[in-house]
Amino acid sequence: MAARRCFLAPCWRILAARRTSLTAFTPSSLSAVLNCQVTTKAFLHQNVTMPTHCGEQKKNFVLKTPKGTRDADPTQMAIREKVLSIVLNCFKRHGAGSIDTPVFELKETLIGKYGEDSKLIYDLKDQGGEQLSLRYDLTVPFARFLAMNKIGNLKRYQISKVYRRDNPSRGRYREFYQCDFDIAGHSDPLLPDAECLKIMYEILSELELGGFLIKVNDRRLLYGILTICGVPDAKFRTVCTSIDKLGKIPWDKVRSEMIEETDLRPETVDRVGEYIRLNGGLAILEYLWNDSMVSENTMAMEALNDLKLLHRYLEIYGVADKVSFDLGLARGLDYYTGVIYEAVLLESPEEPFSLQDGDTSKITKFGSIAAGGRYDDLVSKFDVNGRKVPCVGISIGIERILSIAQKKAQESFKSIRTTETQVLVASAQPNYLEERMKLITVLWDSGIKAEMLHKKNPKLLPQLHYCEKTGIPLVAIIGEQELKDGVVKLRDVATREEINIPREYLAKEIQKRTS
Amino acid sequence: MAARRCFLAPCWRILAARRTSLTAFTPSSLSAVLNCQVTTKAFLHQNVTMPTHCGEQKKNFVLKTPKGTRDADPTQMAIREKVLSIVLNCFKRHGAGSIDTPVFELKETLIGKYGEDSKLIYDLKDQGGEQLSLRYDLTVPFARFLAMNKIGNLKRYQISKVYRRDNPSRGRYREFYQCDFDIAGHSDPLLPDAECLKIMYEILSELELGGFLIKVNDRRLLYGILTICGVPDAKFRTVCTSIDKLGKIPWDKVRSEMIEETDLRPETVDRVGEYIRLNGGLAILEYLWNDSMVSENTMAMEALNDLKLLHRYLEIYGVADKVSFDLGLARGLDYYTGVIYEAVLLESPEEPFSLQDGDTSKITKFGSIAAGGRYDDLVSKFDVNGRKVPCVGISIGIERILSIAQKKAQESFKSIRTTETQVLVASAQPNYLEERMKLITVLWDSGIKAEMLHKKNPKLLPQLHYCEKTGIPLVAIIGEQELKDGVVKLRDVATREEINIPREYLAKEIQKRTS
Repeated sequence: MAARRCFLAPCWRILAARRTSLTAFTPSSLSAVLNCQVTTKAFLHQNVTMPTHCGEQKKNFVLKTPKGTRDADPTQMAIREKVLSIVLNCFKRHGAGSIDTPVFELKETLIGKYGEDSKLIYDLKDQGGEQLSLRYDLTVPFARFLAMNKIGNLKRYQISKVYRRDNPSRGRYREFYQCDFDIAGHSDPLLPDAECLKIMYEILSELELGGFLIKVNDRRLLYGILTICGVPDAKFRTVCTSIDKLGKIPWDKVRSEMIEETDLRPETVDRVGEYIRLNGGLAILEYLWNDSMVSENTMAMEALNDLKLLHRYLEIYGVADKVSFDLGLARGLDYYTGVIYEAVLLESPEEPFSLQDGDTSKITKFGSIAAGGRYDDLVSKFDVNGRKVPCVGISIGIERILSIAQKKAQESFKSIRTTETQVLVASAQPNYLEERMKLITVLWDSGIKAEMLHKKNPKLLPQLHYCEKTGIPLVAIIGEQELKDGVVKLRDVATREEINIPREYLAKEIQKRTS
Repeated sequence: MAARRCFLAPCWRILAARRTSLTAFTPSSLSAVLNCQVTTKAFLHQNVTMPTHCGEQKKNFVLKTPKGTRDADPTQMAIREKVLSIVLNCFKRHGAGSIDTPVFELKETLIGKYGEDSKLIYDLKDQGGEQLSLRYDLTVPFARFLAMNKIGNLKRYQISKVYRRDNPSRGRYREFYQCDFDIAGHSDPLLPDAECLKIMYEILSELELGGFLIKVNDRRLLYGILTICGVPDAKFRTVCTSIDKLGKIPWDKVRSEMIEETDLRPETVDRVGEYIRLNGGLAILEYLWNDSMVSENTMAMEALNDLKLLHRYLEIYGVADKVSFDLGLARGLDYYTGVIYEAVLLESPEEPFSLQDGDTSKITKFGSIAAGGRYDDLVSKFDVNGRKVPCVGISIGIERILSIAQKKAQESFKSIRTTETQVLVASAQPNYLEERMKLITVLWDSGIKAEMLHKKNPKLLPQLHYCEKTGIPLVAIIGEQELKDGVVKLRDVATREEINIPREYLAKEIQKRTS
């Protein structure tokens, strides 16, 4: 896991946003959300933590959501819907169907899949029955689904919440979204891997996160290098845990930790250090390819071969400019077997940062925002015959982009519309409640999104004020004269223009004006 | 809770479907989903339960989802998306914004809100920290949200899963969707209540469930009648639990249970029985209004007054024909304070049932499919000053309609498309992998949903077969001649017609043909 820096409500799995050029295909860009035409101050949201009394129970209790979780109010939901639609559209553009799995799994389904992070899994209480745990990610349930249904080929997305008993004081949520896209099945080498990276690139571009970099490595290359340097197999996992910290703490500290925790000789660790601090473009692959030590390791050479092909494919897909091969990328999860990757932001919207001399180790402090890799052996762990289904996928976090989008909305002193209401049915005169109800029924039954105040005799001003407050663009006003003439007065809230429309054309006119 | 009858994967909270007339505003009706143009057999889905070995652990374990839960495969997800969009569109048509709350709450937030059903709440294991429980419904978290954020007015929807440790052998899922719409805030009487019933009516009509009936009662009327009949306050809850069974077991059994469990005199119980078996239209309200006993009970008369006004509003909204006042409707949940309602199906798609002499007690065996009511005191239980926020809402279950839609799809031997891919990028000749990749990049970047096979040199036939299998309507074919001419051969999969399109117009042409 990469380093993090907290602002707003930050989290390592989430994204930071900065305005950047949009790719040409953006159908509904994020700027459209943030600059959407609105009229009033953002929906008030404040978390109030206070002791209160529970009715008859007369018992003090704290009014809050559980530690590490939070509600989303209608404004936050409107932003979330827009951000998720960008992710969803991209997943659909790449031909994925979706699946759904339960929020909890049998505990044994999750055991032994997450390395030392397993301690963060939420267990359910034993209330008589099966031992259950909340899902920790969407990858293991996906593999369980493939094995259980004997599916050998599937391109699927899943956008759902996952649960980790992480430390909220370090800016990590305990309930957060993962947006996963995975390709399962046999294929010619690196083609699905390249498509996953293309998807990651498209989404990060379209979400307007500013500069980002996708760090790529291969587990086989990493293991090959550890072998070359004289690290015994049994110590790979511990060494990788230390390597994984390279983005967060400087090399000399990583070095000390490796020596202390693995009992390796300093010369061995230094040799490892020489390799894992390498990063850059195609040149790095060539450099390793020509390294006399590396070229003797079959596993490492296989990986280099694959990475070179991957680079070619990424060039064709037009995404190679954002990719850096990084020998220090290890990824914590146990299940990866080949190519692994992780996207990091090059600068924070709050604190611009310029990338100097290609040293990517500095930039990860702005947080990993998307990650993934190849896991060819996970499905077979669930299959009675050990049948292998090669898989590769990506997982995108969206919490940080949501926080930033929300902050932008607040700063702009504009509110995001939280409803899609097209028209308010109103009256300026008393005793027109039933007429309002009759008219709104016609509109609802014609598919128009319509509201009316739940008051018998509201004055016109509060009705107009309600439209301004909630961004409703039109008001359909009825009174004695309109009823006599068989018309409705349609008022444009912004321009205050009013025009009489025959009742039978009203729905059509509203649809025309608001579509 | 109402009685149930199990078929497919049934559940009391879920809906049954039968083709019926669509309301005029249906933009994308369910029949459009079920009869959508497709080409092949439904996506294979089978739950395989079998012992298997977990890799190195060499340990037998059962490969399954937890008891009472299930996965949804891409076909089921495509159906779910369509059904949920009908519900969502209706909620938006009525001007609601959405909120989200965590999947778990502090245990104390849920305590004392659900009556005897509280025993079905899932608790999380104590792993050091707060005591947490999975949400049991969306209403209590909504009330907690309102109190915590001091919100006095909100029209919101929430479509999320809830969790109940119910008995799956009785056809109940333990993880299932609730689609909730609630109106919080002070208003003139019965206006929000009438809108909730209008929404229930619209959704049940649009979901094509066949005949349905919305049973309406009022907690105050029920309590007033119990008072009149001589039932002491302290026994209301126990008596109501028995009354709630009236749909499932005959009156004489309910009668015996009431006598046994409450120690009431048989004459008292018989007097109660006379009232609670009443049901029908406006005449029932008039009958009670003129009852000398009822007219002396202020609470009952208030309720009757409200129900008469509600009936007037429902007439204007055009939904009164589906509403039956039913004195035997009690609803299990503790928090209701006024009008309560529950929708039941008049017939099962598998087993037609004709409603005779208005006896609604018979028909509930086909299951309650939506329910709700007024809960004016729930928010104040979470508020430090006991501040009151009157609320009314509905909750719609969708599991049963999903099962039925899926069954229809299977019976039709047509599959639902699980992806939205518009075009497959293909080649008939070898060595065109990179050209396919270049072309698909252009299409993706133009917003076209495109796929290609992840093979270096696929033959044309398997590429065409893939389109037929997955319902992709178009194939963009490139080869030597097309590249030379700067065109792409666009093939219509259904008609087999082929036409050369200049590369620069391809995206536009695909968009035109598939929109």
